[in-house]
Amino acid sequence: MDKEAKTDFEIHPLLKSRWSPRAFEDRPVETEKLQRMLEASRWAPSASNIQPWIFFIGLKGDPAYNKIFETLVEFNQLWAVNAPVLILSCGKITTGDNETPNGIWQYDVGQSVAYMTLQAMEDELYVHQMTGFDALKAAELFSLHEDIRAVSVVAVGSLGDPAMLHPRMQKSELAERERKGMDTFVFSEKYGTASDIVEI
Amino acid sequence: MDKEAKTDFEIHPLLKSRWSPRAFEDRPVETEKLQRMLEASRWAPSASNIQPWIFFIGLKGDPAYNKIFETLVEFNQLWAVNAPVLILSCGKITTGDNETPNGIWQYDVGQSVAYMTLQAMEDELYVHQMTGFDALKAAELFSLHEDIRAVSVVAVGSLGDPAMLHPRMQKSELAERERKGMDTFVFSEKYGTASDIVEI
Repeated sequence: MDKEAKTDFEIHPLLKSRWSPRAFEDRPVETEKLQRMLEASRWAPSASNIQPWIFFIGLKGDPAYNKIFETLVEFNQLWAVNAPVLILSCGKITTGDNETPNGIWQYDVGQSVAYMTLQAMEDELYVHQMTGFDALKAAELFSLHEDIRAVSVVAVGSLGDPAMLHPRMQKSELAERERKGMDTFVFSEKYGTASDIVEI
Repeated sequence: MDKEAKTDFEIHPLLKSRWSPRAFEDRPVETEKLQRMLEASRWAPSASNIQPWIFFIGLKGDPAYNKIFETLVEFNQLWAVNAPVLILSCGKITTGDNETPNGIWQYDVGQSVAYMTLQAMEDELYVHQMTGFDALKAAELFSLHEDIRAVSVVAVGSLGDPAMLHPRMQKSELAERERKGMDTFVFSEKYGTASDIVEI
């Protein structure tokens, strides 16, 4: 199983080796590693340093875990059941001091989860993010204020054996990772005009 | 000038040392480093691997740079003028195959920029993201399709001398970095119920 990114240009080993498994080993994650993940999420940048991210941490068997699991669509429940940690990530959709909408909250929560993910990789943990969950049910179960939205569920754990997965999931677990070519998303002065930078 | 994050729990050096300077050295960024940044952005995760991110790369003096610079609010123009690279980051707001809205595009673009940022740090480049720019003007100047939105501008370069900055910006350039306590955003089974994980 070779999940390393097939890059055209060399990138940092943590970025290169990160991927989103579905097979997790069924053993708890060390508290120190979760602390480091959350500390990493804390130091992400955000517009005007608003830090709109909010996380609910579920450890297998505890009430938070059970609530998060309950919000997942059936397909995700099939594999996430093995993950020792589920995190519900949310964002505050208004700025701190007043009721002004924060138009960039989702972007900033995404960055915070990215920092968390790379700290996890450093500690030999893997992360699989999901949008296949019921955000309204999550809001109800976690008593979210009106100005807080649930945006993703993050499964965390050590790599497990792909053989534990439902057959329909084993194929993608073993498949090579794929991305669009850089000439499809890196442009210069106009949409569609490729940047010289990414010529291989 | 000590800009290292004052963390309660140890995190990866790249995450710990990252910050958003305004003083950039006025010299070009090596093409190889930009290539690695864009390659890193490419391998970020995204919902259903849609990869909604799109980047316009401006190198100081070229038409793309001038266009991006023109969209910045005056405050950002005051310092960004020294940055050798400006990147306009955008996202596709619909999914690839049809016209279904992609509700998570901003979150995914945020992750992609986070990966780009950490690759930059690895190559001793710094990044300062801005939301203070005119997204509609950017859409016009770069001929963006209706389903593509500009979301941030990313300044990239080597650290410069804070003395080059306007006096009102020097203070924050030298200030210690600050974040909310973890007990304000890490919860367990309910909003406001702190997670044991982050007890110091």
